[in-house]
Amino acid sequence: MSTTESFKLHEMLEADTVFIKDLPLCRLVLMNNANHPWCILIPRVEDVVDIYQMDWQDQQQFLNESSMLSEVMMQLFGGKKMNVAALGNICPQLHVHHIVRFEQDIDWPHPVWGRSEIVHYSTQQTQDIKAKLLNALDAIVK
Amino acid sequence: MSTTESFKLHEMLEADTVFIKDLPLCRLVLMNNANHPWCILIPRVEDVVDIYQMDWQDQQQFLNESSMLSEVMMQLFGGKKMNVAALGNICPQLHVHHIVRFEQDIDWPHPVWGRSEIVHYSTQQTQDIKAKLLNALDAIVK
Repeated sequence: MSTTESFKLHEMLEADTVFIKDLPLCRLVLMNNANHPWCILIPRVEDVVDIYQMDWQDQQQFLNESSMLSEVMMQLFGGKKMNVAALGNICPQLHVHHIVRFEQDIDWPHPVWGRSEIVHYSTQQTQDIKAKLLNALDAIVK
Repeated sequence: MSTTESFKLHEMLEADTVFIKDLPLCRLVLMNNANHPWCILIPRVEDVVDIYQMDWQDQQQFLNESSMLSEVMMQLFGGKKMNVAALGNICPQLHVHHIVRFEQDIDWPHPVWGRSEIVHYSTQQTQDIKAKLLNALDAIVK
């Protein structure tokens, strides 16, 4: 894979998220927004802004990590639907949203971006979600 | 692959789009909205609502078709950024948006859904875009 040791999370993502784990290709972070179970995968590769620009091997590894994360999140949070989206019109570092949606959530059935005011997790809530995610992921990947 | 001959496009997608081509896994359609170059891939498989639920072989083929389409659209339309998104909170048939974004487009830098009034293509415009897409795709896949 083409991951680089010099990888640095973009400051916009750094400000809005909590570190969970480095998977083989991607950094996994939790969006600090209690409105939705919302994770983001950031491939630790350089000079790409869209998925199709990655090496084919990296694209396949991305798919692998994205699907694993989707399945884990749906199992943990029991939602109605996954929303998976690579937008990146504002933050130029390639990052892919993974959001569990519920028919009762604050933005349903609309996309979540730019609609509702962000509600930050408490430190305890963040620790609890991180522990749940790591427990589920560590059973699958090292 | 798990494509079924009995595949039928959901009536919501049927109403909003124009048929372009059946790729090996997905039906490719053009969103009838002149605000954005906007295609949708619909895997012709049954009983899945999220990408991670497809067989692994189908997921890889989906990635293949999605990346090929992204590259072709960026070459044809010369945009700033691809937006690739599987949402599906309203239409339950798995479908993945592929949208070319420009810094000058009507919704930039926001996501496109639910913001601006839809502007339909003329018949001639639809034919022209379909011809461009088919010409580029037929050079890659049969």
